[in-house]
Amino acid sequence: MRIGILTSGGDCPGLNAVIRGAVLKGIKSHGHEFVGFRDGWRGLVEGDVMDLPRHSVRGISKQGGTILGTSRTNPCEGPNGGARNIRDTLAYLGIDAVIAIGGEGTLAGARDLTDAGLPIVGVPKTIDNDLDATDYTFGFDTAVQIATEAIDRLRTTGESHHRCMIAEVMGRNVGWIALHAGMASGAHAILIPEQQVSMDMVVEWVMEAHRRGRAPLVVVAEGWVPAGEELPHSVRGTDAFGRPRLGGIGERIAPQLEQLTGLETRATTLGHIQRGGVPTAYDRVLATRLGMASVDAASKGLWGTMVSLRGTEILNVGLEEAVGNIKKVPQERYDEAAVLFG
Amino acid sequence: MRIGILTSGGDCPGLNAVIRGAVLKGIKSHGHEFVGFRDGWRGLVEGDVMDLPRHSVRGISKQGGTILGTSRTNPCEGPNGGARNIRDTLAYLGIDAVIAIGGEGTLAGARDLTDAGLPIVGVPKTIDNDLDATDYTFGFDTAVQIATEAIDRLRTTGESHHRCMIAEVMGRNVGWIALHAGMASGAHAILIPEQQVSMDMVVEWVMEAHRRGRAPLVVVAEGWVPAGEELPHSVRGTDAFGRPRLGGIGERIAPQLEQLTGLETRATTLGHIQRGGVPTAYDRVLATRLGMASVDAASKGLWGTMVSLRGTEILNVGLEEAVGNIKKVPQERYDEAAVLFG
Amino acid sequence: MRIGILTSGGDCPGLNAVIRGAVLKGIKSHGHEFVGFRDGWRGLVEGDVMDLPRHSVRGISKQGGTILGTSRTNPCEGPNGGARNIRDTLAYLGIDAVIAIGGEGTLAGARDLTDAGLPIVGVPKTIDNDLDATDYTFGFDTAVQIATEAIDRLRTTGESHHRCMIAEVMGRNVGWIALHAGMASGAHAILIPEQQVSMDMVVEWVMEAHRRGRAPLVVVAEGWVPAGEELPHSVRGTDAFGRPRLGGIGERIAPQLEQLTGLETRATTLGHIQRGGVPTAYDRVLATRLGMASVDAASKGLWGTMVSLRGTEILNVGLEEAVGNIKKVPQERYDEAAVLFG
Amino acid sequence: MRIGILTSGGDCPGLNAVIRGAVLKGIKSHGHEFVGFRDGWRGLVEGDVMDLPRHSVRGISKQGGTILGTSRTNPCEGPNGGARNIRDTLAYLGIDAVIAIGGEGTLAGARDLTDAGLPIVGVPKTIDNDLDATDYTFGFDTAVQIATEAIDRLRTTGESHHRCMIAEVMGRNVGWIALHAGMASGAHAILIPEQQVSMDMVVEWVMEAHRRGRAPLVVVAEGWVPAGEELPHSVRGTDAFGRPRLGGIGERIAPQLEQLTGLETRATTLGHIQRGGVPTAYDRVLATRLGMASVDAASKGLWGTMVSLRGTEILNVGLEEAVGNIKKVPQERYDEAAVLFG
Repeated sequence: MRIGILTSGGDCPGLNAVIRGAVLKGIKSHGHEFVGFRDGWRGLVEGDVMDLPRHSVRGISKQGGTILGTSRTNPCEGPNGGARNIRDTLAYLGIDAVIAIGGEGTLAGARDLTDAGLPIVGVPKTIDNDLDATDYTFGFDTAVQIATEAIDRLRTTGESHHRCMIAEVMGRNVGWIALHAGMASGAHAILIPEQQVSMDMVVEWVMEAHRRGRAPLVVVAEGWVPAGEELPHSVRGTDAFGRPRLGGIGERIAPQLEQLTGLETRATTLGHIQRGGVPTAYDRVLATRLGMASVDAASKGLWGTMVSLRGTEILNVGLEEAVGNIKKVPQERYDEAAVLFG
Repeated sequence: MRIGILTSGGDCPGLNAVIRGAVLKGIKSHGHEFVGFRDGWRGLVEGDVMDLPRHSVRGISKQGGTILGTSRTNPCEGPNGGARNIRDTLAYLGIDAVIAIGGEGTLAGARDLTDAGLPIVGVPKTIDNDLDATDYTFGFDTAVQIATEAIDRLRTTGESHHRCMIAEVMGRNVGWIALHAGMASGAHAILIPEQQVSMDMVVEWVMEAHRRGRAPLVVVAEGWVPAGEELPHSVRGTDAFGRPRLGGIGERIAPQLEQLTGLETRATTLGHIQRGGVPTAYDRVLATRLGMASVDAASKGLWGTMVSLRGTEILNVGLEEAVGNIKKVPQERYDEAAVLFG
Repeated sequence: MRIGILTSGGDCPGLNAVIRGAVLKGIKSHGHEFVGFRDGWRGLVEGDVMDLPRHSVRGISKQGGTILGTSRTNPCEGPNGGARNIRDTLAYLGIDAVIAIGGEGTLAGARDLTDAGLPIVGVPKTIDNDLDATDYTFGFDTAVQIATEAIDRLRTTGESHHRCMIAEVMGRNVGWIALHAGMASGAHAILIPEQQVSMDMVVEWVMEAHRRGRAPLVVVAEGWVPAGEELPHSVRGTDAFGRPRLGGIGERIAPQLEQLTGLETRATTLGHIQRGGVPTAYDRVLATRLGMASVDAASKGLWGTMVSLRGTEILNVGLEEAVGNIKKVPQERYDEAAVLFG
Repeated sequence: MRIGILTSGGDCPGLNAVIRGAVLKGIKSHGHEFVGFRDGWRGLVEGDVMDLPRHSVRGISKQGGTILGTSRTNPCEGPNGGARNIRDTLAYLGIDAVIAIGGEGTLAGARDLTDAGLPIVGVPKTIDNDLDATDYTFGFDTAVQIATEAIDRLRTTGESHHRCMIAEVMGRNVGWIALHAGMASGAHAILIPEQQVSMDMVVEWVMEAHRRGRAPLVVVAEGWVPAGEELPHSVRGTDAFGRPRLGGIGERIAPQLEQLTGLETRATTLGHIQRGGVPTAYDRVLATRLGMASVDAASKGLWGTMVSLRGTEILNVGLEEAVGNIKKVPQERYDEAAVLFG
């Protein structure tokens, strides 16, 4: 088989490890041949490919980003998009199967295309860990680790200056990164989109930590808004998909919190450092295994499925399971973390 | 309730996070009171305890080691050991329940004592990840991360000098650390106790990597021996339990490999750095959750159980499940990794 | 002698190592006794002290922040401030000498007080490295290291998305952190307060990198403004000393740059993570040596001096040398770095 | 000019940053052209070169090792070695100047060849920091940082188990890495080749720390031997230059110390991880500056000189200054560190 690989959407530590796992497994176990589509669906739609011989994936599992490039191109739009055109492109390029590595939008696109008969296998990718059909996704562990290390650093500043420190982490729609980084770093409050929490409640947690002699630490997901406030659609405009760019919630509540508590308060937005650079060993192993399993799935012609982690096993699940169901932080996981608050 | 906590056996990143999770959960959700036994079972047997008020666990989740100290004392030996004496000691100290954090030996001791009627809940601890009743144990992720970072460093030396590098990691009886660190770092051979591999096979993998222009990298678990060789019982004497101290396998095969391949070969034994210091965020979260769940189990009187990770959930399982069954690396996981060899 | 130590101004990795170095050297070599003033000059002015026996400095050299707390209190203001009151306070507390660890403001205060006869020795502290009387100050190396690691992470995102990435680092008045972190991470443009650079010039560097197939990386110090633009006094109000809080320059120029270059552009402000947490080994060694030397200076009665690094040696220099002369990045150092631009 | 670069001897973090600095400076400021000799002097002697265009040094400053490869070949030996043959080789290859990056042996070879009229500029490279003609050499800071982080990890194991921990670091002839890593990590004893210290003295330091309730930490350079003992020439044979391979001193004294103190004692040899992998920001900046300065020196025809760090400046010094004088840890630096002992 001749298999094409693409990486789509925001970059994520572990993408290269998926590519390496797929290519090595495919070459050594199945005798496949590989090409990469440049910049996600764009490369597929436009037929822009690069060869992926064995030596091209040498040593890349520890590199952040993706050697294939990425974009937010929608495969069903544009003059060359849509299932019919893509089928022709694949035929022209002599490509028998596509491994599409991407998030919910990518997997939805893959499902639509497989419904139309195209030979595609998915690999779930979301740094936010918000895909329901898999226990964890690669990149999430690295993001949590980076955020935790950064928050560890913020703590010492808070303690030396008797300040309240706010750390804003990624998480537009779900609070997994905030939940894990907050638990790991001992946050006195964790604020996530799934939970309606009022500023009064935040003040209470902050003041309780303060009364115990601690420098209060608040970890907030970028998509959280105080209960009762409207979603600030305008704050930073919209992203490439027309979705509101939130962000800035940490900076926005810092002066409020300072006024309400009387404590000097500083916010730091961790931003893009959470999604780049060297992946953790956990993510490298997970990504490598997912990459290998995706080739096995392609070899078996399991079109319309994606690979998934369940416990310690890699399984195949239907793409329809992955799409449409965002995995939110359940109430019991938030309650569990809330024991540490205040 | 008044609950006593002990940490037993080799130290492990995350022990303090377990303690913190248990104490905070117990105080805030159940109104329990906590003491710590000093140095594992020794503190319990000798009634050597320290108070564990809330502020004593402040900020400890990111500290390596254990604030309680540890030892390899067997609770059933010595003049003050055994279920009857320990029952008296607990009564004298007014302690209603014991949370025992430890590995297979500790959990076996806990099971024997609960069989004799003592109120004990277990928390599994093994840096080697060799307990069958849980998907992963805290400390393992940190060990793999440290080993992977160290091996990443060794690679550049190997490549600059065109050398074969051997990294010896922990794993006396099982090869989980070697398997994961080897996959993460792109090893050309991974040698683990579960797999009979001859030196000829190792040479073949090394030479294949060399022919492709790579500096061969071999990751070996300390408990591996080449197929056909006897277990070198004498190499480093025995440990506190009379078990042979292996170690040194990397140094031992380096000159053999150099002679057989003609490639300059260097071994590094990572040693104790794999088990100390700041835990990864993954381990801090897992350990915190296990600590919390252990208190819930104690509150419900689930004596003779231990807390366990299954997928993303923390469950209670009987101690008998944890004891006696060592979790070895299964064949399919080794085969999966072996795709990367050579 | 009975010596009081204070840490003043913004926190800085290495403060605790200075304290440890001073206390151990004083106790072991000179038989001194130590107290710490809480929260900088405030503790001295208000007579708020804590004992600093040997065990209080145990293991603190690797802790970020300061165990003494810090503030921006001016020792010459307030009802209890000024040389006369402080002299009385010291006499009342039985304190023979003060070691004041702080930045330019602190050292200026220390000089005024020693001019009025008080027994004070200074230890220079500025994370920005802007003190002229010493080659480097502790904390700077840690800040550069953290910034460099973060920028390494940003690069992979830039390269995967073909974006221009902007990293804003600390440096309100001087560009040392930007210069070093930019050189270390291979920035295509480094923008510092000392250098008048127009947006046109920045665009040229960015486009040159882009034409060579690179993802452009811009490192900007928070105090830089494009040539021709006014200092944005209003951007974030003023700090405790009434100085304008700049910051936000990265976010501010990102859309401009995106419009001028046609390249998607993202900014990240590294913020407080640059000044907290575990110090580098370099800073721990430097800080320990400075702490030790400050006690030697106090033992010799070298009031009005501060300790200073020159080459590999620790010297004593007059406080007047340290005060008033801000150490800017010289033209030749910028020219040297500029070879890497574009 | 057409300039050839070589890297010789043991690998060292920062080598690639030197190469990048030289190539970019040479191309952009002087219009030079660059080639690399493969594997140190071997590539020069055998005329084995690779082109070094600008894009070949892209992004390499953070890579450990050397893209040119290295070896311990002596340029004055063999059928093609010696000044006359090398002159012919350079002429044949059209190379006008050589930048030789290496340690004492390399620089001595470079001096001999320049004495014979060859156009060579040196860049000092020694991870051990034992070259007298420069304040610091690149690679040293990274080695100290890695060793310090590893020792931080060992501490928590020591404290949990009430053990004495021994960390063996690099330093065959000088103790700079041990001195700095020991000061940074708060060692209770630092043992270096420059200092005659008896086992009795070590025991005293260890027991003093133990009496104060600490887990004793000993940092030992690989080249140290207890006072009164002979140099163990046989321990690990000899290296490529016929010098005895020491190493193993930590493992060797651990049982002695255990017997003498009654404390469980464990040794870890950090080994090759100290010299590989990503350089610190400090080393990247220093190496980049040295590389640039070496090209400036070549452009001026300063043959027989090497570049050197003095304070914050990069200077040129004669190679004869660098050769023959090993920079040992001076007594006052050891005394300074010894304040922390016990």
